[in-house]
Amino acid sequence: MYTIDLNCDIGEGYGHYKLGNDAEIMNYVTSVNIACGFHGGDPRIMRETVLLAINKNIAIGAHPGLPDLNGFGRREININPEEAYDLVIYQIGALQGFITAEGGVMQHVKPHGALYNMAAKNKQLAEAIAKAIYKVNNELILFGLAGSALIEAGKKFGLQTAAEAFSDRTYMCDGSLASRYEVNSVLSDKKAAAKQAIRIVKEGKIKSNEGLDIDIKADTICLHGDGENALAIAREISVSLVENGITIRNFLQNRK
Amino acid sequence: MYTIDLNCDIGEGYGHYKLGNDAEIMNYVTSVNIACGFHGGDPRIMRETVLLAINKNIAIGAHPGLPDLNGFGRREININPEEAYDLVIYQIGALQGFITAEGGVMQHVKPHGALYNMAAKNKQLAEAIAKAIYKVNNELILFGLAGSALIEAGKKFGLQTAAEAFSDRTYMCDGSLASRYEVNSVLSDKKAAAKQAIRIVKEGKIKSNEGLDIDIKADTICLHGDGENALAIAREISVSLVENGITIRNFLQNRK
Amino acid sequence: MYTIDLNCDIGEGYGHYKLGNDAEIMNYVTSVNIACGFHGGDPRIMRETVLLAINKNIAIGAHPGLPDLNGFGRREININPEEAYDLVIYQIGALQGFITAEGGVMQHVKPHGALYNMAAKNKQLAEAIAKAIYKVNNELILFGLAGSALIEAGKKFGLQTAAEAFSDRTYMCDGSLASRYEVNSVLSDKKAAAKQAIRIVKEGKIKSNEGLDIDIKADTICLHGDGENALAIAREISVSLVENGITIRNFLQNRK
Amino acid sequence: MYTIDLNCDIGEGYGHYKLGNDAEIMNYVTSVNIACGFHGGDPRIMRETVLLAINKNIAIGAHPGLPDLNGFGRREININPEEAYDLVIYQIGALQGFITAEGGVMQHVKPHGALYNMAAKNKQLAEAIAKAIYKVNNELILFGLAGSALIEAGKKFGLQTAAEAFSDRTYMCDGSLASRYEVNSVLSDKKAAAKQAIRIVKEGKIKSNEGLDIDIKADTICLHGDGENALAIAREISVSLVENGITIRNFLQNRK
Repeated sequence: MYTIDLNCDIGEGYGHYKLGNDAEIMNYVTSVNIACGFHGGDPRIMRETVLLAINKNIAIGAHPGLPDLNGFGRREININPEEAYDLVIYQIGALQGFITAEGGVMQHVKPHGALYNMAAKNKQLAEAIAKAIYKVNNELILFGLAGSALIEAGKKFGLQTAAEAFSDRTYMCDGSLASRYEVNSVLSDKKAAAKQAIRIVKEGKIKSNEGLDIDIKADTICLHGDGENALAIAREISVSLVENGITIRNFLQNRK
Repeated sequence: MYTIDLNCDIGEGYGHYKLGNDAEIMNYVTSVNIACGFHGGDPRIMRETVLLAINKNIAIGAHPGLPDLNGFGRREININPEEAYDLVIYQIGALQGFITAEGGVMQHVKPHGALYNMAAKNKQLAEAIAKAIYKVNNELILFGLAGSALIEAGKKFGLQTAAEAFSDRTYMCDGSLASRYEVNSVLSDKKAAAKQAIRIVKEGKIKSNEGLDIDIKADTICLHGDGENALAIAREISVSLVENGITIRNFLQNRK
Repeated sequence: MYTIDLNCDIGEGYGHYKLGNDAEIMNYVTSVNIACGFHGGDPRIMRETVLLAINKNIAIGAHPGLPDLNGFGRREININPEEAYDLVIYQIGALQGFITAEGGVMQHVKPHGALYNMAAKNKQLAEAIAKAIYKVNNELILFGLAGSALIEAGKKFGLQTAAEAFSDRTYMCDGSLASRYEVNSVLSDKKAAAKQAIRIVKEGKIKSNEGLDIDIKADTICLHGDGENALAIAREISVSLVENGITIRNFLQNRK
Repeated sequence: MYTIDLNCDIGEGYGHYKLGNDAEIMNYVTSVNIACGFHGGDPRIMRETVLLAINKNIAIGAHPGLPDLNGFGRREININPEEAYDLVIYQIGALQGFITAEGGVMQHVKPHGALYNMAAKNKQLAEAIAKAIYKVNNELILFGLAGSALIEAGKKFGLQTAAEAFSDRTYMCDGSLASRYEVNSVLSDKKAAAKQAIRIVKEGKIKSNEGLDIDIKADTICLHGDGENALAIAREISVSLVENGITIRNFLQNRK
């Protein structure tokens, strides 16, 4: 039997500023990554988003980012491993506060944006992040790019890991994501995205931008909640997966 | 037998900026209030300060403040109760992350600066803060100004409370602190501060700026770690209390 | 001949976050107030907005706010007059940098949100703001609530002032705006807003929420660029004013 | 006749946090670089520092940094040239506001920390910074590392440039500064620092960490105001330069 988790970044607005369609995208995912105030999100939004996820019975994860609200956490900052360790603990802790207050459970941690990408390649940053998670709560699942240094680091610390693939992003032949700054980095056609998702789950393969098939073993697939067709794409992927006999569920459900 | 807890605000530097003599003042107190990144403090400093307190076996509390690093949390911001609730949960959670990672325990929560003063008078803010603490961890002790709305709110939610008095600040006859913006708001003479501390513990009285004695029932006395003579004052108070037969200990020790 | 200036707050997004329909609302106004990075806006958005205004030949003003991005500058912060002075100079200067770089001219300054409202009532804050403007550039026009302490302060410092009225906000009988936190504080019916605008210009009167007519002498009327019907309301007001024989123009045009 | 300018970074505190001995170090320099609020400094400190410099008759420059108060502007952030352009204009403008208000003149711009180092090597960032300065005020002098891409960029835009050398930092044989993270990157011996300063001015040479002499043509030498022996080193350098027949003066004085 094929199973897959679908995850989405949410709670990424700030103060007066709204972002994405959190309530709607949550109809299509089984896990959510909630921003923790550094690249997006703030205490009010974190509380509201935690409540939304609990009410919809979706597994909650922390989505810690670099301290760069203006750059939405997408600009690399040359932090050292100790700084990565500290900012991950801070953000996990802050979100855990709201989850505890509302009677929920944190399932996982998925770094955001540039922190995610840096940790995919930089072993020392990756291990600092894995160590931070381990020391706060060693039952948390580490979400990271399939095949990345971050997944390796999680395993080294004995964490459960979830390898992530993207249904609507394109890949280079080394397994890294094509940069957002390049054309063709995003699949905007919903049929193509759904096809890529199904192939990831059933075949463990993806076609890279260079045209070669690459192996990709994914435990969770990332959907997006903002962008013009985001909801239509999410629905297409979700429906197509089910139609192809794939069970969509998160890791807490797997445990049961 | 007379007992009293001595507490101090610490970890209030930020990034490249240092503040206070945290390591030294910790030789004289039994509880510390660690800044959580809103009015001062940052992830690195929080981790280092938590470690320091654990190593010195001093009880740890969260010291949440208003989101105003530039004003050091001392300027009133017209937040509503919900905003107070959210920012207290966020900051307690963030600090708890470091305490958990280092194997420590959080004893208490003491709001900082303008948040502390607003909560002393504003019942709705006070109840929002008490509720936040209650929902995150109902074993946390709420530190608040003796006789204030914050202490009342804590009791209403069933929290253990610790009424705080100040040995080196002067009081108005209504039991509020004289404003920092006024002359004579701070006792800079160490003998006078020690005398005030002893009288608080033994007699439960303090002389107000208007010259009248007021009743003050304190469970904890606040010392300060910055300022020219801070350490000398702290030492004087600590030594004088002991010489006067008063046991200095925190609430975790009381529990044992 | 009746003349009036129409102004709008713009450039209030931040980083990844968009806000309002700046380009569209600029088709209906003759002056714009550009956020300067404290309550909204950032360097990129300021540059882009300045360019937009220059290209559309609309008079540019600085829109300094309290340092509270999370609260969008709408929460009162208990700053002292010196702090108001400093933050107004900083923000005017920052915007002037972009205006100078693009070859434009700054026409006016209009404080934002809570700073605007505090300065409407607090004489010391109002004078600190007027003094800041005077010292940076004494040809700048101070926009403030009609009949407010801010307009008084501007006159005291010899600044040209522009009394502002709101076509889509309701008033109390003392001439202050009904609080945003109250029902009926905003006129969402475009015909009613246009009617209020025309009456302000032609009769110098407005009906307060208590039902009494109050006198209001306005040089400029504020339109809004966000909200569901903002553009429809703006168009209605603009068209109605012209149809009623009123010339819409800013103060630079008046000077010519 | 030998002449040299001595400059120092000042006004780098923030809110409640103090940094360096601004008033004292200003007795030894002829130009100061004032922080503009991004890596350090805030509106109050900027006003006070501008006033101090005007009163001491020292030439004022803007010292724009990356938006990273927590990292004191010393961590590289992967900004693009447009972002560099925008943040330089913003910060120059903000400081110019205070200088204008106090009746002073801005002499120069010197980027701070990681922005300075990135612009020393990255031609596109360097040109974005030079262009920003040029468009705000083409009479401003661009301070940059001697021999760097930033000095080249300034010349390309027709700006007057001032090549900077460091008397208390050590150099690599390619003319770059030894990283602060390495041992021996700072000369803490005042005699050695003074000697290096004199040799820079008289011979245009410096001994690199690899032991080779390198050519260095400097128009200004950077002193530091914080650190234990900073003032003693500054005094030693200043006195030694004069004793060796070198005139210390800034570029405004040269113009006269």
